[in-house]
Amino acid sequence: DENLKVFTLNSNPSLAHEITSNIGIEMGKCSVSRFSDGEVQINIEESIRGCDIFIIQSTCSPANEHIMELLIMIDALKRASAQTINVVIPYYGYARQDRKARSREPITAKLVANLLETAGASRVITLDLHATQIQGFFDIPTDQLVGVPILSDYFEAQKLDDIVIVSPDHGGVVRARKMADRLKAPIAIVDKRRPKPNVAEVMNIVGNIEGKTAILIDDIIDTAGTITLAANAMIENGAKEVYACCTHPVLSGPAIDRIQNSKIKELVVTNTIPLQEDKKIDKITQLSVGPLLAKAIIHVHEQRSVSRLFN
Amino acid sequence: DENLKVFTLNSNPSLAHEITSNIGIEMGKCSVSRFSDGEVQINIEESIRGCDIFIIQSTCSPANEHIMELLIMIDALKRASAQTINVVIPYYGYARQDRKARSREPITAKLVANLLETAGASRVITLDLHATQIQGFFDIPTDQLVGVPILSDYFEAQKLDDIVIVSPDHGGVVRARKMADRLKAPIAIVDKRRPKPNVAEVMNIVGNIEGKTAILIDDIIDTAGTITLAANAMIENGAKEVYACCTHPVLSGPAIDRIQNSKIKELVVTNTIPLQEDKKIDKITQLSVGPLLAKAIIHVHEQRSVSRLFN
Ligand SMILES: Nc1ncnc2c1ncn2[C@@H]1O[C@H](COP(=O)(O)O)[C@@H](O)[C@H]1O
Ligand SMILES: Nc1ncnc2c1ncn2[C@@H]1O[C@H](COP(=O)(O)O)[C@@H](O)[C@H]1O
Repeated sequence: DENLKVFTLNSNPSLAHEITSNIGIEMGKCSVSRFSDGEVQINIEESIRGCDIFIIQSTCSPANEHIMELLIMIDALKRASAQTINVVIPYYGYARQDRKARSREPITAKLVANLLETAGASRVITLDLHATQIQGFFDIPTDQLVGVPILSDYFEAQKLDDIVIVSPDHGGVVRARKMADRLKAPIAIVDKRRPKPNVAEVMNIVGNIEGKTAILIDDIIDTAGTITLAANAMIENGAKEVYACCTHPVLSGPAIDRIQNSKIKELVVTNTIPLQEDKKIDKITQLSVGPLLAKAIIHVHEQRSVSRLFN
Repeated sequence: DENLKVFTLNSNPSLAHEITSNIGIEMGKCSVSRFSDGEVQINIEESIRGCDIFIIQSTCSPANEHIMELLIMIDALKRASAQTINVVIPYYGYARQDRKARSREPITAKLVANLLETAGASRVITLDLHATQIQGFFDIPTDQLVGVPILSDYFEAQKLDDIVIVSPDHGGVVRARKMADRLKAPIAIVDKRRPKPNVAEVMNIVGNIEGKTAILIDDIIDTAGTITLAANAMIENGAKEVYACCTHPVLSGPAIDRIQNSKIKELVVTNTIPLQEDKKIDKITQLSVGPLLAKAIIHVHEQRSVSRLFN
């Protein structure tokens, strides 16, 4: 179909190439480089007039660079008369800044939504927003895909027995429940609380993990503090072994060291964010969201519902 | 005046501090840092409800980081009920991407204008836009100050005799004329042209430079190719000595080496862009736009015309 074109920017070209080969099309031709002073230089090298365009760009670190690249690309496509400009943002950066946690803070997740619309985006396709409310920050259509099926299928194939799906905090219980449904397993929750201000947190576990294989699930693993503390608490509380998984492997700062030194046997992540070489350790398994995104793109292009890809 | 607050972001704090001390106020309290994954974390640490806010931020290299910092700060101020949000952008990055030089290019200077308005800016104060047309990219008021008076005053104080003001290309003749008027000097133009495609450019000089002290003037010096070739052509064509000046010292890539190895005796720039340590060479003199911007801020805050600061 000559009307469908996919372009990649610089955040996640390997995922983008997986997507185009899954769809069975060539990658759109464009150069995305830098002028001598570091400003983004974009040139689209084929006509895209009247086409449905899909741009693949995670706004992972360096988030600001990747956001600006995306905005500038949207601007170029708009001026080149694209019919629709669909932005595929497998990992939506700044999602944790989705509310004012303190006075006089920005709500950057909303700002970025506004910026994308101002630049000229027609639709956003993303995976596992940190809070589903972020969909409401957009006035254009958004499709939110989920990583749970991909992660669940992987663990199902491992044929682990007597498993329990564990949410590392109160915010992740809905996600843990979804995974547990798929794997027909019970759930547990790490119930952290601070008895008094300036007193260390107490890690209590709600649910039975004794002698079981615990699978911790989160949406984002960033510095890996939460997940590794939770993993160690699992073992201390009698779990047989502990796995962890998430959709978005941010893995900044001390993350890799913490994972290496933790009781986590295996960490399963997706490729919404690419793993740099120094993060490709034996303990980490990376699964692809390429086939899922390829399907979503075809559905959107053919104006079919994406919702049945959600589960 | 408690209603006037100035904040600095990370691009040019020394200029910002010069501005507040010229106005005679404290710098607004806010922390602008990074989360572990590099995302911008901003917290405004004093009430700004109902205030006229001025944010000082050049969008110099790394331009994308500085633009995103600025947009996020505007968002935070808007949500904290600022009365007006005036962005002082001494150097407006991406200004050279102000038209489609080729098909399917972005017009990033216009995109950034739209982004600033979307975030919530009420007014823009800037210096020497690469093209004055960029003012028309904004639907909010813009004030464009100019560097020529500051640069001219410096050369006037040097009491150089028999000077000629030289534009290094056709695009800069208006600026050279303005400086020449101030210094009561004649002008000359470096008239580059390519006799045939794929043949080296010929540098012809329009105007009399023989035995004179040439002062080259440009708005931006980036890789310094244009200005150093022009300087060397001056000497080859009989100029006694050659000075150069510009408002915005981008100075990327080979710029410093080229300047060191050129016939330029002294390069005079302003501090719209700070000079990193490795760029502080003897040949370069940096003048401050701090007093000018301080005056502009007071005029805007007191709702007086800024236009008499223009010349
Ligand atoms: N990039 C980031 N890294 C760490 N914390 C963040 C980041 N962005 C936002 N936050 C903070 O994370 C909190 C929201 O996370 P959560 O409670 O998990 O929804 C807020 O207090 C934010 O200030
Ligand atoms: N950051 C940059 N560095 C070098 N050239 C640029 C930059 N941004 C835009 N340009 C190019 O500079 C040209 C415009 O410069 P000018 O002809 O001096 O107005 C256009 O062809 C742009 O593609």
